[in-house]
Amino acid sequence: MSRRHLPVAALFEAATAGDRAALARLLSLLERGGAEARDIGRLTYPVAGRGYTVGLTGAPGAGKSTLTSATIGHLRSMGEEVAVLAIDPSSPFTGGAILGDRVRMQDHATDPGVFIRSMATRGHLGGLSLATPEAVRLLDAVGKRWILVETVGVGQVEVEIAGKADTTVVVVNPGWGDSVQANKAGLMEIADIFVINKADRKGTEETRRDLEGMLELSDLAHDAWRPPIIAAVATERRGVDELWSTVLAHRDFISSTHELERRREFRLREELREIVARRLEQRARVVLGDDRWTELQRGVVGHHIDPWSAADEMLGPVGA
Amino acid sequence: MSRRHLPVAALFEAATAGDRAALARLLSLLERGGAEARDIGRLTYPVAGRGYTVGLTGAPGAGKSTLTSATIGHLRSMGEEVAVLAIDPSSPFTGGAILGDRVRMQDHATDPGVFIRSMATRGHLGGLSLATPEAVRLLDAVGKRWILVETVGVGQVEVEIAGKADTTVVVVNPGWGDSVQANKAGLMEIADIFVINKADRKGTEETRRDLEGMLELSDLAHDAWRPPIIAAVATERRGVDELWSTVLAHRDFISSTHELERRREFRLREELREIVARRLEQRARVVLGDDRWTELQRGVVGHHIDPWSAADEMLGPVGA
Repeated sequence: MSRRHLPVAALFEAATAGDRAALARLLSLLERGGAEARDIGRLTYPVAGRGYTVGLTGAPGAGKSTLTSATIGHLRSMGEEVAVLAIDPSSPFTGGAILGDRVRMQDHATDPGVFIRSMATRGHLGGLSLATPEAVRLLDAVGKRWILVETVGVGQVEVEIAGKADTTVVVVNPGWGDSVQANKAGLMEIADIFVINKADRKGTEETRRDLEGMLELSDLAHDAWRPPIIAAVATERRGVDELWSTVLAHRDFISSTHELERRREFRLREELREIVARRLEQRARVVLGDDRWTELQRGVVGHHIDPWSAADEMLGPVGA
Repeated sequence: MSRRHLPVAALFEAATAGDRAALARLLSLLERGGAEARDIGRLTYPVAGRGYTVGLTGAPGAGKSTLTSATIGHLRSMGEEVAVLAIDPSSPFTGGAILGDRVRMQDHATDPGVFIRSMATRGHLGGLSLATPEAVRLLDAVGKRWILVETVGVGQVEVEIAGKADTTVVVVNPGWGDSVQANKAGLMEIADIFVINKADRKGTEETRRDLEGMLELSDLAHDAWRPPIIAAVATERRGVDELWSTVLAHRDFISSTHELERRREFRLREELREIVARRLEQRARVVLGDDRWTELQRGVVGHHIDPWSAADEMLGPVGA
C-alpha cells in the first residue's frame, strides 16, 4: 500500500515516528483543505503545544531566506532539529517551481534534522489564514521543537500570519528607514525583534536610529519588552548567534509574563472565527441548493437585484 | 449641517455633482464597512458600469506610483479626468501617515480633474476584498471614467484584487527575470500588459526575453490576446503614451470579444460570495448570542474541545 492511500491516522503515526514522506503527504492534504484537513486537525490538536514558532518577515529582497538558512545552520550546530515553513511567494525555499525557477538555497535539504516545506493553498477555502496554523500545529504535533515560518512582510494576509508566531522577527535593510517601500506601520506592530540585515552596507546606523525613533513614537519603547535591534550579515552568518540568543530571551520573557499563553489563546480564537466563517459559507451552499444560488447570482450579474439584497434572500433560510 | 452628518443619499448626490469632500466622506464610510457601506452599495450599484478600471501592480520599488503619476499626467494632457485608488501599503500615494512618512508624489493633488485616494480597511469586516470593489463602484457611479487601482503585487489578497481590474498592468524592472524576488506565477496569471519600468538600466532586453519565455511556457502566448511588453522610464514619462494606447487596445479587444462582460460577471460573483460569507459570520454571532460564543471559545482555548467540534456546536442552530 503506497503512502498516497494510507488513512490520515496511519500517516500521522508514521510522521510522528520520523517518516518524512508521511509528513510531506499530510502537509499536502492540509494544503488541499477538505475533510482530511479536518481529520488531521483533530489528531494534532490534543498533542500540539510543545513546539515554539518563530516568524521571519520583511520586504522581498531583505534577505529573509538567507537569514533563515543561517539560523538553521546555527540551530544544527547546537544539535537542535528544526522545521521551516516558507509561505513567502518570493522565497527561494518556495522554489517557484512553476515557470522554471530553481530552488537555490536548500543547503540543508539532505540533512535529516531539517524539514523544509513551502506552502501553496490554491485548493484551501480558508487560504493561508487557515492552512498556516494547521501546518504549524502538525509540525508541532509530530515533535518539531523549533518551527520557523518565513512570510513576506507585504500584503494583508501575510503580515497577519507573520504576527501570529510566538516570536516575530522583522528583517529590514540599511536604508529602509529612509524609504517608503515597506509597510512600516504593519511591521512595527508585529515586531518582537528587528534585524538589520546586510549591515555591512552603509546606512546601518541611520536605519537603527530610524527604528529607535519609530519605536519611541509607537510607544513600543515603553513596553516591558522593547524590541531589540540586531545588525546582521546573513550571508556570512554574522549576527545569527545574537539573533538566536535574543529569540530565546524573548521566549523566556513572554513565558514568564504569561504573554505566550495570551498570544496562543488569541491565535486559537482567530482560527476558530475563521473556521466558523468558512463552515457557514459551505453550509449556505448546501441549504440553498445549487439552483437557487445560481439563479440569484444570475440576477446580480443581470442587474435585476443588488448583491446585498441577493445575500439577504440567500440567507433567509439560514439562521432565521 | 456639516458633511459629517449628512445622510448617505445626500452625500452621494453631492459627490455626483462634483463635491470632492462628499466623495471623500463616502469613501471613509466604505472603509469602515457597516450599514452605511451597504447603503452606499445600494445607491451605486444601479448606476455604475460606465467607468473603466485599470489595475497597476508589481513588486515594491518597481515604480508603480511613478508610472501611475505619469499616466495621470498623460490622461490630463488629453483632457481626461481620472481617479486613483492606492491600496498598496508601500505606495507614496497611501502616504504612510502613521509613523511620520510624508506623501512625496502628489503632483496632481491640486488638480480638480484628478482624485487620489488611499485605502485603509481596519474596520471593514471583509477587508480589502470587499472594500476595494465597493470603492471602485462608488468612483464609477459618481462619474469617474478612468479608475486606476494601484496594488502591491505581493500577497494573496493584493494579487487577487489586482487581477480584478478590467485591464491589469504588471510592472517589472530589468533584472526581475533573473531574480526570484517576485511572485512570478501569480503575476503572470493576471497580466494583460507588462511594463518593464526603469528600462534605461541594463538588463531590459534579457527581462523582455525572460517574459517572452514565460509567456510561451504559460500558454498565454497562444491566447487571442498575447500580453504586450512595453519598455518605460516612468520618471521621464517614456513609454507612457505606448502604455496608454495599449490599454485602449486591450479595452477594445475585451469589449469586442465579450471578455469584458465575462470579467465583470466573475467579479460580481466573487463579491457576492464574499458578502454572503461575511453576512453569515455576523448572523452566527447573533444567533448564538455572546455567552455561548464566549463559552465555546474558552473551551477551545482550554483544550476541552477542538476548534472543529466547537464550530459544529456553534453552527448547530444555523441552517440546521
